[in-house]
Amino acid sequence: MTVGKVVGTVVATRKDEKLIGSKLLIVQDTEPDGTLLSRYTVAVDAVGAGVGELVLTAAGSSARQTNSTKNKPVDAVIMAIVDSIEVHGEVLFQK
Amino acid sequence: MTVGKVVGTVVATRKDEKLIGSKLLIVQDTEPDGTLLSRYTVAVDAVGAGVGELVLTAAGSSARQTNSTKNKPVDAVIMAIVDSIEVHGEVLFQK
Amino acid sequence: MTVGKVVGTVVATRKDEKLIGSKLLIVQDTEPDGTLLSRYTVAVDAVGAGVGELVLTAAGSSARQTNSTKNKPVDAVIMAIVDSIEVHGEVLFQK
Amino acid sequence: MTVGKVVGTVVATRKDEKLIGSKLLIVQDTEPDGTLLSRYTVAVDAVGAGVGELVLTAAGSSARQTNSTKNKPVDAVIMAIVDSIEVHGEVLFQK
Amino acid sequence: MTVGKVVGTVVATRKDEKLIGSKLLIVQDTEPDGTLLSRYTVAVDAVGAGVGELVLTAAGSSARQTNSTKNKPVDAVIMAIVDSIEVHGEVLFQK
Repeated sequence: MTVGKVVGTVVATRKDEKLIGSKLLIVQDTEPDGTLLSRYTVAVDAVGAGVGELVLTAAGSSARQTNSTKNKPVDAVIMAIVDSIEVHGEVLFQK
Repeated sequence: MTVGKVVGTVVATRKDEKLIGSKLLIVQDTEPDGTLLSRYTVAVDAVGAGVGELVLTAAGSSARQTNSTKNKPVDAVIMAIVDSIEVHGEVLFQK
Repeated sequence: MTVGKVVGTVVATRKDEKLIGSKLLIVQDTEPDGTLLSRYTVAVDAVGAGVGELVLTAAGSSARQTNSTKNKPVDAVIMAIVDSIEVHGEVLFQK
Repeated sequence: MTVGKVVGTVVATRKDEKLIGSKLLIVQDTEPDGTLLSRYTVAVDAVGAGVGELVLTAAGSSARQTNSTKNKPVDAVIMAIVDSIEVHGEVLFQK
Repeated sequence: MTVGKVVGTVVATRKDEKLIGSKLLIVQDTEPDGTLLSRYTVAVDAVGAGVGELVLTAAGSSARQTNSTKNKPVDAVIMAIVDSIEVHGEVLFQK
């Protein structure tokens, strides 16, 4: 999974019918301490994440393993909201 | 999913029989504000997208989850046309 | 899908038994106008492509959706031969 | 598979229900001799790995082939703990 | 598929039970002429490859389509040993 920050939203009226009701969020990749990187992806939200939160995103076919994304044409899903990240015994991020 | 702009079309007479009738579009990756990047992909269109429109593309096995791509040898599908993108409370793109 | 040019062939006598009879081609990635890039892949040919032709390659599980690659351990398939590519109304490639 | 070192942990209370009980570890990619690279991923642990150990990570749908990750929305799993790595007849890493 | 050279082995006693008996090899990516690149992967051997041989590796779910990798948590498999590679009519590699 990839650590990233929810930074925005995408509105799309015309879309595959299976996507109706899916919330599309822009997630920017981060370092484990929350530092923003220059890569981003658009992911479907499966856990009620909001702008500003650090999240985990699963990609590929794994993105279709949640109840809200099953059989849908989506290749990225937010499946967890990060509370804290600890690296080498040091807390790098705390919500 | 990846944000990109439809910039062109591919014509291919000789192709796998499952691809007959599929529209093949060239999609160039963009930043969330629509700025063109130097990467591009060829995707099957599932939503009636046209050249110049900002779209979302799903890759991998997820590209086969639309009615128009099921069981076909395609690894990228346009599954939404972007109306607007908002990042950090600012509208970066508006159709 | 990726646009690329067939530049060569691979001979492999010792291989997984499911691959017997599959033609293995070296495909070099190109820009939409056919300009060669420095990336290449080895793909199974599903459409009778030859060295020098511009083709589309599908990757991942999608590479196994043709009759000639079903259930085989291959992650790239040539599924179309490009006739022409048009970007922003200009013909960049014509066979 | 990718060789990496377990360097930390992620705590996430709010997550997809299928992830309850899964241990989420931060794995930093390494060279075969254990030298740390600047890429990292978050993986589910399937073998009882601990911080400081060199491990193998499987990505994509393959990450869902262990008993602890089946049908879960996870795209990376630690499926082996490395004892030793030998390259060109030289032992580069020994636990 | 990716062309690479088998350069080493990985020993892992503690691993997912489905991996018992699988040979884990380090494969370094190469140019079509066998020149080593700086990328490498760990792959399961399905064809009896040895250190020093040029091989083809299939990645992702396709890596699970051989008899020796079916349903296993592995994302890379060596599925062919290269005899020769010819590019633009010139033999770049000959075993």
